[in-house]
Amino acid sequence: MSIDQRLTELGITLPQPAAPVAAYVPAVEASGLLHISGQISVDEGGNLIKGRLGEDMDVDAGTEAARRCGIMLIAQMKAALGSLDRVERIVKLGAFVSSAPSFTDQPKVANGASVLMQEVFGEAGRHARSAVAAPVLPLGVAVEIDAIVAVKR
Amino acid sequence: MSIDQRLTELGITLPQPAAPVAAYVPAVEASGLLHISGQISVDEGGNLIKGRLGEDMDVDAGTEAARRCGIMLIAQMKAALGSLDRVERIVKLGAFVSSAPSFTDQPKVANGASVLMQEVFGEAGRHARSAVAAPVLPLGVAVEIDAIVAVKR
Amino acid sequence: MSIDQRLTELGITLPQPAAPVAAYVPAVEASGLLHISGQISVDEGGNLIKGRLGEDMDVDAGTEAARRCGIMLIAQMKAALGSLDRVERIVKLGAFVSSAPSFTDQPKVANGASVLMQEVFGEAGRHARSAVAAPVLPLGVAVEIDAIVAVKR
Repeated sequence: MSIDQRLTELGITLPQPAAPVAAYVPAVEASGLLHISGQISVDEGGNLIKGRLGEDMDVDAGTEAARRCGIMLIAQMKAALGSLDRVERIVKLGAFVSSAPSFTDQPKVANGASVLMQEVFGEAGRHARSAVAAPVLPLGVAVEIDAIVAVKR
Repeated sequence: MSIDQRLTELGITLPQPAAPVAAYVPAVEASGLLHISGQISVDEGGNLIKGRLGEDMDVDAGTEAARRCGIMLIAQMKAALGSLDRVERIVKLGAFVSSAPSFTDQPKVANGASVLMQEVFGEAGRHARSAVAAPVLPLGVAVEIDAIVAVKR
Repeated sequence: MSIDQRLTELGITLPQPAAPVAAYVPAVEASGLLHISGQISVDEGGNLIKGRLGEDMDVDAGTEAARRCGIMLIAQMKAALGSLDRVERIVKLGAFVSSAPSFTDQPKVANGASVLMQEVFGEAGRHARSAVAAPVLPLGVAVEIDAIVAVKR
């Protein structure tokens, strides 16, 4: 089964890959690794998912925001590689969660993207990860996640 | 002298590699590089080292927390590679230090892990690094550090 | 035209590469990628550019601070590679912006470094990027940026 078929089975529609909000590009492939720019949380309608965990957003909403970052990462992979079947392995996710100083569940929030990668890519979706807090994120979004992907050559 | 012998000489006992606190894996090898997940600070007894620098933890305690992250990174290398003698070079450490807004000694804290890498791996332990502050970290820990390691093939 | 000539044309003088402020090295090359340590903002006179965006520094000053980080990254590339003509591609910048909790223009600030890379390296300077906030940065600086560069072999 192709990854596109798997996405269909999961009911996931890839959005138009987001244009960078500034002077950079969405992804660069070098030495067999695709480095993907940090993707900020936007909903299916293309609206920013704003908020700060532990303040005005709960863990479930944060987890969904992280899942949306993951979907946009997959859209960027497809745009950069032509086909998602060129994904050999999701190597690393770097998750930044907008957090009040008292909020310590960044791993649960980041799971929104991590679980998605395993749903979509199976064993190849099992990745290393860091998940940390930021006091605020670009445009006020709740979550930003970047990625490193190993590419079939 | 093997790296295991060097650890013994330094009096360092590797802990059981920590299981990820969420839906990801400890390390992924691709293109000659091992990307290791962010390791949070835990003491020899396996208890979380919690705190925020500049608030309820001083630089010495923070440096020790970073050293413990480094020891866990080495434990993850061994688990992922089978032998630490497959480490060709510690390429990069990414250190996140839970910090009050007035605390600016993140580099001193991160040295706890950096000095360790050079003690254990010698020249091969000399790495690039970023060290930044976070307002809070997962589970309330003081330090989280991830790593990239070049692997002998 | 060589990159050195391009720097001259742009009126950019590379500073003495900054020594690490702690126990690590400025850059490590492995598997065709050069990982460069986080470079903190310093002005042409070698003085730290301190501040926190949204508090005591405006976007223009922050953007200039990021540009200075970029210039130091290029100085580190030259020191590590011998010649800037060995730069195949700027792969990724990781930008950390010292920010008050209300400041959300980290992408505009990080553009100071991103625009520079494209001015200096042209198409090869188009990179992936993440830009996030930190509550504070080492020594009180406004911006810290690390980089991954693909190297001609």
